[in-house]
Amino acid sequence: MKSDIPVTCLQRLPVYLNYLKSLDGGAEYISSGAIARALNMGEVLVRKDLAYTSAQGRTRVGYNRVELVAALEDYLGCNNKKNAAIFGAGGLGHALLSYGGFINYGIEIVAAFDKDPEKIGTEISGKPVYDVSETKEGVEKLGVELAVICVPATHAQEVADVLVGCGVKAILNFAPVLLKVPEDFNVRNIDLAANLAILSSLI
Amino acid sequence: MKSDIPVTCLQRLPVYLNYLKSLDGGAEYISSGAIARALNMGEVLVRKDLAYTSAQGRTRVGYNRVELVAALEDYLGCNNKKNAAIFGAGGLGHALLSYGGFINYGIEIVAAFDKDPEKIGTEISGKPVYDVSETKEGVEKLGVELAVICVPATHAQEVADVLVGCGVKAILNFAPVLLKVPEDFNVRNIDLAANLAILSSLI
Repeated sequence: MKSDIPVTCLQRLPVYLNYLKSLDGGAEYISSGAIARALNMGEVLVRKDLAYTSAQGRTRVGYNRVELVAALEDYLGCNNKKNAAIFGAGGLGHALLSYGGFINYGIEIVAAFDKDPEKIGTEISGKPVYDVSETKEGVEKLGVELAVICVPATHAQEVADVLVGCGVKAILNFAPVLLKVPEDFNVRNIDLAANLAILSSLI
Repeated sequence: MKSDIPVTCLQRLPVYLNYLKSLDGGAEYISSGAIARALNMGEVLVRKDLAYTSAQGRTRVGYNRVELVAALEDYLGCNNKKNAAIFGAGGLGHALLSYGGFINYGIEIVAAFDKDPEKIGTEISGKPVYDVSETKEGVEKLGVELAVICVPATHAQEVADVLVGCGVKAILNFAPVLLKVPEDFNVRNIDLAANLAILSSLI
């Protein structure tokens, strides 16, 4: 539970991690200033963000890069395996079931849930597709803590209601709709079209 | 060009829009306080955000809902059609080519570009797949202003370099890598795995 870290800061930690990993084979030490310049950020902000992790920077030397990567991975739970499931095995759900990037963060996509009889009982990228009406049993049996909602906007709330009631601890929601969940429940929304619209409005 | 609006505010406008559209058939007027409560935000923030649009709230009455939707749509460029193309027709690219949500924001996905000879020359969801080596010609011919990068991280920078050089005005990047682009070039990054990792680290 990391309720003390601002979400805006938490969002930057994977950015640092990706950048530092991209330097693989580079210098042993890296300064907050070098990180800040590479990522086009302020150096004070970088230092504040990294202070949430266990990494210790040394004056005039910087951070040991391997140790900093390990500290970020530890903070982000990469070494603490968690199971996730995809709800809605349509185009996006299908893509996420095949996506290899989650395991870098210790997250394993263990199954999908859908209501289409033609999909239920099949496998997608080696992951079983279960009947969404059996969500509660499936989530418990598989130890699913994270859920990814990829169903159409019209069905997202009913899926979320079931998930909140069956022990899932956080939802990543791709449906362009505001989910009503208990106040302390963790939800992140990614509205794909809105993200492109934001860019579109800037040009 | 809306360089005066903070990105954090711009990001909230689609959230207001989705919420207001979900009220279709509801009351004629809605107050900033009602919007704030529904979205779990501060009322002052809502008023400040909406002041960037042409919508005019009236004291003790609020905003005419239909007018406010129109003002938000106008601000977000929904009535100003723009063409987009997907780079990388793998799982995610495929899903985005089939995704119907972009057109709500006036964005039409007109084509995909890939390097796989088995995909080039085919259609995905009715959209042609071109050879990525013909990006420059394709982008010009099709009038593509927005690009969505769905290629693997190892290829994202080379794709971005071509896009920046051929008149594309903004990039939505799904590759988990920091793109080097000119300072005034518009890029938004969506790291799908990192988003789930952020949730994972909170539970």
